[in-house]
Amino acid sequence: MRDFSADQRWLSINTATVRMSRGVDLPLPEIIEACAQRGIRAISPWRDQVAAAGLDTISKLVKSHGLELSGYCRGGMFPAVDARGLAAARDDNRRAVDEACELDAKCLVLVVGGLPGALAGKAAHKDIAWSRSQVRDGIAELLDYSRTLCMPLAIEPLHPMYAADRACINTLEQALDICDELDPPRTGEAKEGTQASLGVAVDVYHVWWDPKLQAQIERAGRNRLLAFHVCDWLTPTTDLLNDRGMMGDGVIDIPRIRGWMEAQGFAGYSEVEIFSSGNWWRRDHGEVLDTCIQRHRTVV
Amino acid sequence: MRDFSADQRWLSINTATVRMSRGVDLPLPEIIEACAQRGIRAISPWRDQVAAAGLDTISKLVKSHGLELSGYCRGGMFPAVDARGLAAARDDNRRAVDEACELDAKCLVLVVGGLPGALAGKAAHKDIAWSRSQVRDGIAELLDYSRTLCMPLAIEPLHPMYAADRACINTLEQALDICDELDPPRTGEAKEGTQASLGVAVDVYHVWWDPKLQAQIERAGRNRLLAFHVCDWLTPTTDLLNDRGMMGDGVIDIPRIRGWMEAQGFAGYSEVEIFSSGNWWRRDHGEVLDTCIQRHRTVV
Repeated sequence: MRDFSADQRWLSINTATVRMSRGVDLPLPEIIEACAQRGIRAISPWRDQVAAAGLDTISKLVKSHGLELSGYCRGGMFPAVDARGLAAARDDNRRAVDEACELDAKCLVLVVGGLPGALAGKAAHKDIAWSRSQVRDGIAELLDYSRTLCMPLAIEPLHPMYAADRACINTLEQALDICDELDPPRTGEAKEGTQASLGVAVDVYHVWWDPKLQAQIERAGRNRLLAFHVCDWLTPTTDLLNDRGMMGDGVIDIPRIRGWMEAQGFAGYSEVEIFSSGNWWRRDHGEVLDTCIQRHRTVV
Repeated sequence: MRDFSADQRWLSINTATVRMSRGVDLPLPEIIEACAQRGIRAISPWRDQVAAAGLDTISKLVKSHGLELSGYCRGGMFPAVDARGLAAARDDNRRAVDEACELDAKCLVLVVGGLPGALAGKAAHKDIAWSRSQVRDGIAELLDYSRTLCMPLAIEPLHPMYAADRACINTLEQALDICDELDPPRTGEAKEGTQASLGVAVDVYHVWWDPKLQAQIERAGRNRLLAFHVCDWLTPTTDLLNDRGMMGDGVIDIPRIRGWMEAQGFAGYSEVEIFSSGNWWRRDHGEVLDTCIQRHRTVV
């Protein structure tokens, strides 16, 4: 297992972690500057942050600082109630692939969506199997496109508490079943030659509880393991979405899970992704980044 | 599939659903009276409520009203950090079996526990595999006892969001793996001859999201399906524990899941279990029970 204690070579900051500083929105260019100042080598930005600053601007900033993108957040949200909605999702996902290519991201992360309308509090139906079928079809269609551009797609299984409104792919096993169905030979011929064109993003927050986690990471193998996200599960957790903990402050045995990943040959970034409206988003982003570096070295 | 529309023959009220009326604790004898007045035939009481009123008192009340117990809540909480803690859990679980027998419950529901100390906000360790091993051993030991009294044990897999603090058994598959390991021939010779001595309680709130749910209900088969609990998943859900919805107010396709249960021969109660500090516990318990009856007839 790699030794993270001496530096932050393999730390990546998902920019949602510092999307607010002292409770105020922090523009992506400032986030990038703050990361670069601290010798952080990689980020994973969100599309809305990129759009707000302009894709060209961000692309130039990232390159001028020599930053890598451990991933791009995010595509997905495939389910819809009609053909028009499905087509809109398809088009938007193709744009996300294009942007990921422009930014030279390692992968496009897919948060696949749940029941249409549920995120707004009004689900159009209760047929999660239907949503799952639409997700499968949506990924299949997007894969035809992303393969031509050599941009790997990383399905991120989300915690089951998001099954209704954010993602109806909720276990690593379920995500890998889709990978194996849509990309059986793990072909890809994606960037770097070792990654499948379709794989998974393993976020400890979403999967730490799974009794089959180790077995499914082994099943995934190196070329399906496209991203590794870290934060922590707090007890108690006071909000379903925005009460993620800093690594070390909760109950997840992060080094154990990282060990399982690395036993398969995973050698990418540990990407810190923390949504925390009550704590970390209220602090100064410099303090948050310094804490991420310190925890990355000691408890990841 | 049974027709529930004409009466509440198969409705059971988990007494947590009305543990408060207008925000004030409601004693179990009053809950029992209110259920009986409405022609409700079954309840599932909690140990703390029984203890507060006295086991003898409740036993007599239940019998005088001709009520059945669809289950008894609850045993479990097996994990501990030392032998003394494990022994205390063992002894307490045996008392729970004794009480379930005295009340003639259909089964003792097991909420198995998670990381020791996590429920109080301070987990003693992060080794969930260790907790799972203690749970398996604890159930094995309790089963030796419960079999002698013909009291079936129903493992309740809890939603993964409770893995840290309440139950580290989080899928039906995982629960059934334990059942098959500890009771391979589904022997039992429990009450009524058709139930295994070890089985599962299927609560739609905990398992609705699971892509393997139907397959695992089929795997369970009739004599492992010991209980069926209903409520609903709200979008948004504002609290991890106490924001369960009334059947029909959320996104769970309850009739579909009941259909899967009944296709296996399940013919027991639909037990309503709603924790709702912000809504139903604030209302008058009579209104809550009337609503349960109405929803049981129309959306379960």
